[in-house]
Amino acid sequence: MHKKQVSVFIPDSFLSETTDLKLKTYKTGVIGRALAVFNVNLIVIYKDLSQKDDKFVKDSDFMADILGYMNTPQYLRKKAYPIKSELKHVGILPPLRTPHHPTDPDVKVGEFRQGFTVKRNKKGTFVDIGMNNENLAFCKEQLSVNKVFSFKVIKVAKEVIVEPDEPDDVYWGYDILSTHKSLKNSLKLVNPDFVIETTRYADTINSIFNEFEEKVDSASKLAIVFGGPYSSISEELDGFSWDLIKVNTIPSQGTETVRTEEAVLSTLSIINMLLNFVD
Amino acid sequence: MHKKQVSVFIPDSFLSETTDLKLKTYKTGVIGRALAVFNVNLIVIYKDLSQKDDKFVKDSDFMADILGYMNTPQYLRKKAYPIKSELKHVGILPPLRTPHHPTDPDVKVGEFRQGFTVKRNKKGTFVDIGMNNENLAFCKEQLSVNKVFSFKVIKVAKEVIVEPDEPDDVYWGYDILSTHKSLKNSLKLVNPDFVIETTRYADTINSIFNEFEEKVDSASKLAIVFGGPYSSISEELDGFSWDLIKVNTIPSQGTETVRTEEAVLSTLSIINMLLNFVD
Repeated sequence: MHKKQVSVFIPDSFLSETTDLKLKTYKTGVIGRALAVFNVNLIVIYKDLSQKDDKFVKDSDFMADILGYMNTPQYLRKKAYPIKSELKHVGILPPLRTPHHPTDPDVKVGEFRQGFTVKRNKKGTFVDIGMNNENLAFCKEQLSVNKVFSFKVIKVAKEVIVEPDEPDDVYWGYDILSTHKSLKNSLKLVNPDFVIETTRYADTINSIFNEFEEKVDSASKLAIVFGGPYSSISEELDGFSWDLIKVNTIPSQGTETVRTEEAVLSTLSIINMLLNFVD
Repeated sequence: MHKKQVSVFIPDSFLSETTDLKLKTYKTGVIGRALAVFNVNLIVIYKDLSQKDDKFVKDSDFMADILGYMNTPQYLRKKAYPIKSELKHVGILPPLRTPHHPTDPDVKVGEFRQGFTVKRNKKGTFVDIGMNNENLAFCKEQLSVNKVFSFKVIKVAKEVIVEPDEPDDVYWGYDILSTHKSLKNSLKLVNPDFVIETTRYADTINSIFNEFEEKVDSASKLAIVFGGPYSSISEELDGFSWDLIKVNTIPSQGTETVRTEEAVLSTLSIINMLLNFVD
């Protein structure tokens, strides 16, 4: 796992060419998988200003739901995502198979697990961490209930004791923001120090490879931003607190347009390679 | 467009995790798009020997049909692909939007077009090249009928005259082979001089970057081979007429497994960048 924070920004118009709910689910699943394969920490869905007012608010929240569902371990999905009609095709989503989705119901001391806070008393909180027979672990802190947190297993005896904690040496999934804000304002929320704007109208990656590599090397919070099906990024991202580079990661593209999910995978592949140069 | 010949090899087990015909169609479409985005010349579907005898013969031919359909210009699809039930979801396939799929019914002298040979007489062959009112062009050669060939427009008058020809400076789509043969024997059919075997068990791309770049540079016929959903490539590809390199193009992968379509896009992205270094 690389040590930098990497976030990916996609527009709320991402699904607009598809009306079929099953395909919308599948297409979002492609993004979820790409994030996990390449250890991305945060996905931000911003408002595509080239499109009419609030046209895609619903799609934005749908994507956030699907990506959240994928990022939730199998044993917590039913609790964390109550049945609703938009989620009826989640069965086709490919599993992430990340370290934060363990499949073993037996827990070990020192292991990290995501857990769902079921109920609380004066001494602490009962947490579902995916053990057999829906047995609950206990955390000696008073946490909000009906939420997913990460825990470390402290003791395995008659009772399993956990405390809130997250590992820092394995990939632990991604966070999701559906901002309903412009790209610029969404970037300000995240506050990266280096923004990579992908567009076919910029210099090609091969022509600026060394400069690009050095910038990736010296950045600590990278944001990679993508346009939607209708246009490249329409907002001007220059002149803010972050360093900006525009790059075409698909030189000599054979097709007139590149779809957002294709650009996401292709770009993350190259940046992942560079991040591994650096580490 | 790069000057080297690039072929991609995927196993016939590619679709085996999906039973839904619509999703099988969509998943194959992801591959077709990736080939066109990255100017791939040939896709070969080989027999995955890790799977039971002939289990995926049908899937192999289905993929070839879908990829062929995508590679055919819109104006020839109905002629070249008569209705059959396996093709009922082709409406969801994204268009390639490549130079060999023109959308203008007016043809110009010097232009290249794919055409379907409709009928033949002693003087030559009538060809549908997508003009208005289903007007046919004429080619002064006797060609087999009911086939798709590439033509150059020689004369535009009362009659449009074409001759068989293909451009060499723009991407002109991909060829498809469904071999029903092992990977080794499929490679022998294509006879590349450099084979890139993608596997997570090999050296990572970042650790062998310079060596890899030099080999790509000196090769003229590259074959990039991918495993299927069940396993890495099981055949031994060393010791043949080609130079072989094994490489992991996704260092530090966050997920336990990488899906074939994810590996295809990620790998082609890096190799496309390298091919553009070289040109």
